[in-house]
Amino acid sequence: MAKIPLGNIREAAQRDCIEALIVEFITTFLFVFAGVGSAMAVDSLSGSSLEGLVVVALAHALVVAVMISAGRISGGHLNPAVTLGLLVGGHITVFRSILYWIDQLLAASAACILLYYLTGGLSVPAITLASGVGYLQGVTWEVVLTFSLLFTVYGTIVDPKKGSIDGLGPTLTGLVVGANILAGGAFSGAAMNPARAFGPALVSGDWTDHWVYWVGPLIGGGLAGFIYENFFIHRTHIAIPSEEPY
Amino acid sequence: MAKIPLGNIREAAQRDCIEALIVEFITTFLFVFAGVGSAMAVDSLSGSSLEGLVVVALAHALVVAVMISAGRISGGHLNPAVTLGLLVGGHITVFRSILYWIDQLLAASAACILLYYLTGGLSVPAITLASGVGYLQGVTWEVVLTFSLLFTVYGTIVDPKKGSIDGLGPTLTGLVVGANILAGGAFSGAAMNPARAFGPALVSGDWTDHWVYWVGPLIGGGLAGFIYENFFIHRTHIAIPSEEPY
Amino acid sequence: MAKIPLGNIREAAQRDCIEALIVEFITTFLFVFAGVGSAMAVDSLSGSSLEGLVVVALAHALVVAVMISAGRISGGHLNPAVTLGLLVGGHITVFRSILYWIDQLLAASAACILLYYLTGGLSVPAITLASGVGYLQGVTWEVVLTFSLLFTVYGTIVDPKKGSIDGLGPTLTGLVVGANILAGGAFSGAAMNPARAFGPALVSGDWTDHWVYWVGPLIGGGLAGFIYENFFIHRTHIAIPSEEPY
Amino acid sequence: MAKIPLGNIREAAQRDCIEALIVEFITTFLFVFAGVGSAMAVDSLSGSSLEGLVVVALAHALVVAVMISAGRISGGHLNPAVTLGLLVGGHITVFRSILYWIDQLLAASAACILLYYLTGGLSVPAITLASGVGYLQGVTWEVVLTFSLLFTVYGTIVDPKKGSIDGLGPTLTGLVVGANILAGGAFSGAAMNPARAFGPALVSGDWTDHWVYWVGPLIGGGLAGFIYENFFIHRTHIAIPSEEPY
Repeated sequence: MAKIPLGNIREAAQRDCIEALIVEFITTFLFVFAGVGSAMAVDSLSGSSLEGLVVVALAHALVVAVMISAGRISGGHLNPAVTLGLLVGGHITVFRSILYWIDQLLAASAACILLYYLTGGLSVPAITLASGVGYLQGVTWEVVLTFSLLFTVYGTIVDPKKGSIDGLGPTLTGLVVGANILAGGAFSGAAMNPARAFGPALVSGDWTDHWVYWVGPLIGGGLAGFIYENFFIHRTHIAIPSEEPY
Repeated sequence: MAKIPLGNIREAAQRDCIEALIVEFITTFLFVFAGVGSAMAVDSLSGSSLEGLVVVALAHALVVAVMISAGRISGGHLNPAVTLGLLVGGHITVFRSILYWIDQLLAASAACILLYYLTGGLSVPAITLASGVGYLQGVTWEVVLTFSLLFTVYGTIVDPKKGSIDGLGPTLTGLVVGANILAGGAFSGAAMNPARAFGPALVSGDWTDHWVYWVGPLIGGGLAGFIYENFFIHRTHIAIPSEEPY
Repeated sequence: MAKIPLGNIREAAQRDCIEALIVEFITTFLFVFAGVGSAMAVDSLSGSSLEGLVVVALAHALVVAVMISAGRISGGHLNPAVTLGLLVGGHITVFRSILYWIDQLLAASAACILLYYLTGGLSVPAITLASGVGYLQGVTWEVVLTFSLLFTVYGTIVDPKKGSIDGLGPTLTGLVVGANILAGGAFSGAAMNPARAFGPALVSGDWTDHWVYWVGPLIGGGLAGFIYENFFIHRTHIAIPSEEPY
Repeated sequence: MAKIPLGNIREAAQRDCIEALIVEFITTFLFVFAGVGSAMAVDSLSGSSLEGLVVVALAHALVVAVMISAGRISGGHLNPAVTLGLLVGGHITVFRSILYWIDQLLAASAACILLYYLTGGLSVPAITLASGVGYLQGVTWEVVLTFSLLFTVYGTIVDPKKGSIDGLGPTLTGLVVGANILAGGAFSGAAMNPARAFGPALVSGDWTDHWVYWVGPLIGGGLAGFIYENFFIHRTHIAIPSEEPY
């Protein structure tokens, strides 16, 4: 079993941790800004609901690919479920994970507040289950889609055997987010990310089904991290990176 | 001629084979889940049939790119026709190929059963020939499109002369799947993959034209593997990879 | 000035030349098959004309990216204008260029004939100028778009200073084809390729404006090759590659 | 603080500077040609406004990715805001920046004039604020989106710690342009680039809101360059590149 490092409160005063928190804030902010912004563009322009799905999937795919790549200083998690998935595999300390979670929720909230202002007060669309999709179904959707996301993070970024695909992992992670939105967006909303769901819920005040986007992604992300780390990575020691959290 | 290794039953008890079968199951499951899910999203949202084609092509392109990359442990075949194409070139043993085929069919079936439950019982769309496309035409479509797929697998992943494009092969393989669906999706359905066709047929009970998606892809995939391996790769020996099946 | 090698008839009997011609045929065939196939899918499915533009641009972008990458044995020109652009820079002999041209026209014709059969006789859409676009305008469109294509081929594949972007050049070349179709497809047709225009013209018997797709692309491609090679590459000698035509 | 090099007038006579200006002209021209061309295609074809957004976002994403990659000789800035962002970090001299700015405006104007002619006099669409979006909101949109663009340029191209993602930076920069257009295109127009806004304004004579596309992008780009360079790059000296401006 991978050993999960606890970390301690002194980390918060270290320069690399502070830098990481700033970069994690910036990248999560820019990710949510483009992602939620695209959903608001869909609401404000005419088009079919299928077109809307393509716009949202494409925007998320592109901006996730970019922000993970550009956010190397923090690892570019953008997502509490990713942070949990990496924590379970021992790639980040418990203490720093908590700081990342708070950071991601603040960044997502700030992005949504700004979008509300910048669009002249358009409603910021909260993610909810489609009609006909029950709670257990919704949670399962999010478990499977977030499992897929973290399996990709481990298989293309974390796994030290990756070799030749160095550098392409963040882009591939963006692509799987896009594919998963095309599959699940019409049913569960395909958040795969509690922070992405939290920002719009806060600004719109619409907390319908919100807990689904915490429970599902955290189970799916944690499960993928646990399985990949313990069964597919033949590691001989644990390294706690500082500059490179992955 | 490339020599095709037979393998033997003891492989099934080796750790690397078991790991490969688990990863092949996971990646094929996640591929079919996103691919068929996107087709069901098309059915449940309003939009033109051209939009539906774009959604399905995009979802398949992205998720194939990702799952081949993330599934390095098994090779990420996702597809009995890919396994056959690699078998013909001597890159996997006969015995392990049979295990992969069973694995892929189980994973595709499991993904479709789960989608049926998660969408509240929406029909899982079986792949069938468009009206006006006869059997011989349908088989030929699948032969050509799957030949294209395997030619790409060989030209960008398998061929040891590939040199500078290391690591990009799986992404390019996803892209060719997308292009081929845009070309053939409206005519033959562009399955290029017996397992991708099998899952929806099983769950929907609609076996119309199903044999086409076995005969076409297996001929096309096998042919491409045979031609590329024997005419374009100037290999001096056969290596049977264990960790890296390609 | 770059020296243009003449080559001679004995090349045609060399194994590397024969292999290159076979691979050039296969990749050009698969490129035209997916490209023209996507245009026929647009005709056979309902959707807006903007959607049709996206489908055609996307299919061409993806399949060009893939076939240049997979066709390393021949260079994956897929296009007489690319061959001319490389000839002008001294990267291929005159004799082999002529063989490539014939090869590309045969492959494009074969792909279109097969598509005609496989779709039950649907019309294969010839590329023509949009109404309101005159000959000089049409030729200029094709000159500019094909200049853009060859500038990309030189800047990302040929130029020995490319360094860090090794291997990504073919994909970028596909992307520029997609962008150029989105820009010019509604006006000149954005063929950028005499062979791509020739196949549908032959099968449909519709030769309207056909000469535009020879004159424009050959001028644009030749010009880009001449300018890039002679002004931006500080080469000290000319190498005639055999295995790697670029 | 990064030291900003002044440069001097003799640079303008150096061969590397002249080559860079020519390549910057060509790549900016081809970028604006495809980008504005796609917006004109949207106007000339029928389709929903969401489809139009996808076409414009996709065309810009693809052509930016390509032209930064192909324009290595000049750095492929394509954009006065990118040049300013790099100037603030000390990666280009003040003198050369001024030459780049003039060059970019000339190239964008030339591309728009040519498009006007090539489409038989269709209107070249100036970028303006959507109704309901005020000046302060419009400027803020452009600040945030251009900050995102330059943060990506620094995080994936400039930062010497980037390591494994060598060569992918220009492509990622294209992707973030696409995502940002999907988010902001319906509200501020998402120019992120004074030259991209200048060309159409000049040809159409429509200068409505034009200053927004200077003020917003220059603030956003300058801010991102300042923050990234001074807080996240631990540089020990300043290198003024000549062949490689980044």
